[in-house]
Amino acid sequence: MAVVAAGHTQFGPLRRTAKDLFTEAFLQCLDSADRGLDPARVGEAWIGSLGFGGWQLGNLAALLTAHARLPFIPAQRVENACASSGFAFRDAYLAVKAGAVDVAVAGGVEVMNDLTAVRQRYWLGVSGDTEWERLAGLTFPGVYALMARRHMTEFGTTREDLAAVAVKNHQNGARNPKAQFRKEVTAEEVLRSASVADPFTVYDCCGVTDGATCVVLASAAAAKEFTDTPVWVAGSGAATDHLALHDRESLTELAATRRAAAGAFRQAGLSGRDVDVAEVHDCFTIAEILAVEDLGWCAKGEGGKFTASGATGLDGEVAVNASGGLKAKGHPLGATGTGQVYEIFHQLRGTAEGRLRAGAEIGLTHNVGGSGATCAVHVFSR
Amino acid sequence: MAVVAAGHTQFGPLRRTAKDLFTEAFLQCLDSADRGLDPARVGEAWIGSLGFGGWQLGNLAALLTAHARLPFIPAQRVENACASSGFAFRDAYLAVKAGAVDVAVAGGVEVMNDLTAVRQRYWLGVSGDTEWERLAGLTFPGVYALMARRHMTEFGTTREDLAAVAVKNHQNGARNPKAQFRKEVTAEEVLRSASVADPFTVYDCCGVTDGATCVVLASAAAAKEFTDTPVWVAGSGAATDHLALHDRESLTELAATRRAAAGAFRQAGLSGRDVDVAEVHDCFTIAEILAVEDLGWCAKGEGGKFTASGATGLDGEVAVNASGGLKAKGHPLGATGTGQVYEIFHQLRGTAEGRLRAGAEIGLTHNVGGSGATCAVHVFSR
Repeated sequence: MAVVAAGHTQFGPLRRTAKDLFTEAFLQCLDSADRGLDPARVGEAWIGSLGFGGWQLGNLAALLTAHARLPFIPAQRVENACASSGFAFRDAYLAVKAGAVDVAVAGGVEVMNDLTAVRQRYWLGVSGDTEWERLAGLTFPGVYALMARRHMTEFGTTREDLAAVAVKNHQNGARNPKAQFRKEVTAEEVLRSASVADPFTVYDCCGVTDGATCVVLASAAAAKEFTDTPVWVAGSGAATDHLALHDRESLTELAATRRAAAGAFRQAGLSGRDVDVAEVHDCFTIAEILAVEDLGWCAKGEGGKFTASGATGLDGEVAVNASGGLKAKGHPLGATGTGQVYEIFHQLRGTAEGRLRAGAEIGLTHNVGGSGATCAVHVFSR
Repeated sequence: MAVVAAGHTQFGPLRRTAKDLFTEAFLQCLDSADRGLDPARVGEAWIGSLGFGGWQLGNLAALLTAHARLPFIPAQRVENACASSGFAFRDAYLAVKAGAVDVAVAGGVEVMNDLTAVRQRYWLGVSGDTEWERLAGLTFPGVYALMARRHMTEFGTTREDLAAVAVKNHQNGARNPKAQFRKEVTAEEVLRSASVADPFTVYDCCGVTDGATCVVLASAAAAKEFTDTPVWVAGSGAATDHLALHDRESLTELAATRRAAAGAFRQAGLSGRDVDVAEVHDCFTIAEILAVEDLGWCAKGEGGKFTASGATGLDGEVAVNASGGLKAKGHPLGATGTGQVYEIFHQLRGTAEGRLRAGAEIGLTHNVGGSGATCAVHVFSR
């Protein structure tokens, strides 16, 4: 099975509607298939969305597919916090694998900038634990800051190591025309910017983003209709974990990442060492450090030093977040998972202009919901 | 593939939490498997929920599965309006069919009675069209009342025909210990009760309901571990339609029902005539009349007379809503789809005590989202 087409709107504060954004991403998909793609070939659709925009528009899957020239097909909304479209992609993958359809759409959309900061905190907050965290005043920057502090204490990770993630991802994002933040930042700027939740400053945190993304999956037989250079899905893994931090075994790893990755790598017959290019869920700088450890690119505790050494740069051991990641490309929650697939699609086809990991053979996407309560990992090959 | 276990809480205004309700439904599942079921055998879960209870608790799938003794497995929330768990069931079915897991959970939960009537109207309203219907003041009773009036005008369906649906479903619900409304009503009582949206009175409308439901699907090989009397899934179909009524071809049929049923019957190699017992989406009395037509049990326009003739009673041509349906059993939105599967599971195994369609061989579930924008149909055999 393969990804044969991909679409991705500009990310940022856009003042556009969910219908408009999703339709643009889907129409880009149609155009991106080398031999074109008739919407009538699509058998079913899964769309990730956390329901931002105050959830003003319901029955979203039917609404969006009809508007995007995909009327009448089975369609559903998947909501798994920030991993919504990572799981939508998994559903579409399973449907094609089951032979129920031979061409399926997975996508995602979020409109976040039409809400006040107060409402944003509420909608974001509910993706973490409510009973023990949110109602006590703990929001996501605080949750991840706790993980960062613990990582610093246990492993000697430094403030500068965290900043190295932001510097790298802004460097990459500056070269991505679809990124929300297209500017480089220095480590000094990261350290000196306004504090959000100690040890994080503004530059340790992803933005508040609108956008939509969409990809088309096809069976091996159907893929040939659309392109000679499909990107193969080699493995799909997913997992959950306890929602509240205090229920987890450790504050310095995301067990859901480890479990999801184990499943995806087992199916692919590969390991972390085989991956050339990866999009990982860097909602905060510490999240990327945890990810490079939990996905097997370095030992637990060494993610900070590994990043600071340049090993995750475009020409490093593994190119992590060549797109700019959630940090610089932006994080329109429900659209992030299939946005990661869009990037890997272009990386493995050699069309990620300006930010290409040259010669990449194996790619990976890593999409996390909440502070690690859900995770979907996919492995791709060209 | 088969359903091997099923759980279903009491339906009604319960003053209980989503976590509590879903866990009860899942633990019932474990107990209902004839040879027991170790939660460790479950590979993945899909949970339908519209997000009532004001969506106070997010990351619902991870939260509920951990609380229900299903920690760490892949899990996701499916939101497709009132068809959420019908689609969750389809996802679980596709995953087992794909061979990704051999035992999967599909379930649903809704807590509606902790909201004020004003908030209920908002949350329910968004499942219909917002831009052309809800913001103009049209809520669901009004939407379905438009369909009913049109059906009466085109086909001579009478107010008494509509009432016949309520009378039958309350008769059945009175025999279902889990139903919200366990009392019979006469046609006179239906006609004389308070008007909601002409031609509907209170008894034409389903209730506001809390509850959870859950079923376990297993591959043919795995099913033998749990029971000698599995209920086989013979076909799965799903479809969407335009959300706003004015965009549809007709006000007197749900095209999504026809499309979804065609898919499910094709896969099963069966037709509507083969069905002995069916749970259909009777959120309003007219909805059941449309369903019996669109599912192929009588010609378009004859659903009212067909119902009034007793053809859909427990001993009629096809027993429709033996559980009491949404009308009398209750309609906890996200829990309805797998609640329908629970009923068919017991009907085909002969364990639907007090409301059994004797000797039923083929069963069907029909779950609709919004006023027909989404639909999932499943066909079962024993």
